[in-house]
Amino acid sequence: MNIVITGGAGFLGVRLARTLLAQGQLSLAGDSPRAVARITLVDRAQPPADLLNDPRIAAVVGDLNDLLQPGPTGTAAIPPGTHLVFHLAAAVSGECEADFDLGMRSNLDATRALLEACRALKTRPTVVFASSLAVFGKPPGQSLPEVIEDTTLPTPQSSYGIQKFIGEQLVADYARKGFVRGRNVRLMTVSVRPGRPNGAASSFLSGMIREPLTGVRAACPVPADIAVALSSPGRTIEGMICAAQTPDAAWGPLTAMNLPALRTTVGEMAAALGRVAGTAATDLLDWSSDPAVLSVVSTWPGNIAATRARALGLLPDSDFETIIRDYIRENPDAIRLPLQP
Amino acid sequence: MNIVITGGAGFLGVRLARTLLAQGQLSLAGDSPRAVARITLVDRAQPPADLLNDPRIAAVVGDLNDLLQPGPTGTAAIPPGTHLVFHLAAAVSGECEADFDLGMRSNLDATRALLEACRALKTRPTVVFASSLAVFGKPPGQSLPEVIEDTTLPTPQSSYGIQKFIGEQLVADYARKGFVRGRNVRLMTVSVRPGRPNGAASSFLSGMIREPLTGVRAACPVPADIAVALSSPGRTIEGMICAAQTPDAAWGPLTAMNLPALRTTVGEMAAALGRVAGTAATDLLDWSSDPAVLSVVSTWPGNIAATRARALGLLPDSDFETIIRDYIRENPDAIRLPLQP
Repeated sequence: MNIVITGGAGFLGVRLARTLLAQGQLSLAGDSPRAVARITLVDRAQPPADLLNDPRIAAVVGDLNDLLQPGPTGTAAIPPGTHLVFHLAAAVSGECEADFDLGMRSNLDATRALLEACRALKTRPTVVFASSLAVFGKPPGQSLPEVIEDTTLPTPQSSYGIQKFIGEQLVADYARKGFVRGRNVRLMTVSVRPGRPNGAASSFLSGMIREPLTGVRAACPVPADIAVALSSPGRTIEGMICAAQTPDAAWGPLTAMNLPALRTTVGEMAAALGRVAGTAATDLLDWSSDPAVLSVVSTWPGNIAATRARALGLLPDSDFETIIRDYIRENPDAIRLPLQP
Repeated sequence: MNIVITGGAGFLGVRLARTLLAQGQLSLAGDSPRAVARITLVDRAQPPADLLNDPRIAAVVGDLNDLLQPGPTGTAAIPPGTHLVFHLAAAVSGECEADFDLGMRSNLDATRALLEACRALKTRPTVVFASSLAVFGKPPGQSLPEVIEDTTLPTPQSSYGIQKFIGEQLVADYARKGFVRGRNVRLMTVSVRPGRPNGAASSFLSGMIREPLTGVRAACPVPADIAVALSSPGRTIEGMICAAQTPDAAWGPLTAMNLPALRTTVGEMAAALGRVAGTAATDLLDWSSDPAVLSVVSTWPGNIAATRARALGLLPDSDFETIIRDYIRENPDAIRLPLQP
């Protein structure tokens, strides 16, 4: 089994690669399990050393659009013999809102070029496309449905959301035409992300936990009652691997599947942080509203039904305090504050 | 008021241009009425003589993608000073299903290039995008909702439908960003189209009326009970002009508005033809199923609620017999059979 992960040196890509290597084999779309022979990590950055040291890992470093240009032997990003592609690479929401052309190139052009590269293989590889909760947005002066179903019409309120929604349409049509086997998966906001802040409007939803646990101040740029739909890194990876493994008939329509989400609020997240690390942590939160962040995040829905995903056995995280404690267990070097038992 | 019509030498484009010239003025998005000063018809073909002879008409002939390439003074297709663009040009459904790359270029690339050309004007022109009923499709093994609302999630089952739906998303985001004023309008199947058959899967829905009235045999390549959602040419043009004239607040969301449709069946259409021109006409119909046509047309919905359009005062045609009699009145030279009173 030869796998490609775009954005493979990013946080989710690295975690996905480690999970697949540890799992050792995969049943692609219900076929018999096959050993993971090669995982190609395509990214602007080098992946971490533990991955580079695994003989099954190949790193292809560069601009994704460049790496998807066809050459005499195909493209560098999607090598011949590829069975499965996880397309995670994207410019994030805040970047796309600030630089429209960057978003069109990184998200729309790259996704189309990736699908063309897969089509050119003529072997119908499986493409798991990481779409996003951000396809849903509350238009000005209107309301979203109380509960978001898989069949709810997305009305994106950001260029990132539009580009992800267009990507879903492209994946669906390339799959309908038989060029690829398509899996459109909408990721929820992943929290707690380790590492550093990024340009996503949702970046603070990890930063407000991660930074205080290291003793550093962090912004809560939206009111405490803003509802959010979260998924832990582990549940998110589980959903993407499930998409690759599920047979076509069980997967269902080519339209996107919403992954399950924990429904909570920014205020409840802060309260969970307090239960884990006390006021020493919550005193480090700066509650001052940032209109640019609020204008994107406040249009996202909090309540995701995830009916299709639940039918496949995928469940949301049980509570946010557990997510924080998992993060602490997995990132011991990033914790500087004393913890509550 | 300077107007551009892409596909301006096609049947709908020509009719739209004649209607706008006759109307003489336009209230763009509720502003004060302004005289129609210039209509630029952009098409591969020359427009008819009556239009070319009107001093307000300019014809730009060539490949739309080429004409949308930016030059030192902008693009040939969207001249400086353009206030309003009707984007009708497209490769049709049957063509796009047969030639995937043609559809991507003619529909997706051209629509994006057109929006870029409008953005480059920096004057926020109005773009009326002719989307299509074909965004709705019944996926294999599933059913469509009984009634299609403006908020129904499209699940296109053709590349043409996917490309139109992607075009809607692009128009919505260019409008949200303030690059254009956007109007996404979903046209129903237009019948009776004068002229010759085209590569649309729906082409027979005009041909089965037009051809027998000239004494020529015509195919009915689907079963008589197939439901269709039709609009006369006149109602279709009315809907597009309404989109341009309606103020933003009354228009509502940037998502697409379904135009009203007459709900009928192919069998009822044949029966109406019989009432107008007798068995001399209906005996010319060949009822033999064409799987390629059926596989596209049978996935389209018959029952369109058109709630938003009705709130603007737009109504469906009353009955198909009236549509046929209007066609006969408007195209006297195309009628060879004696008519019933």
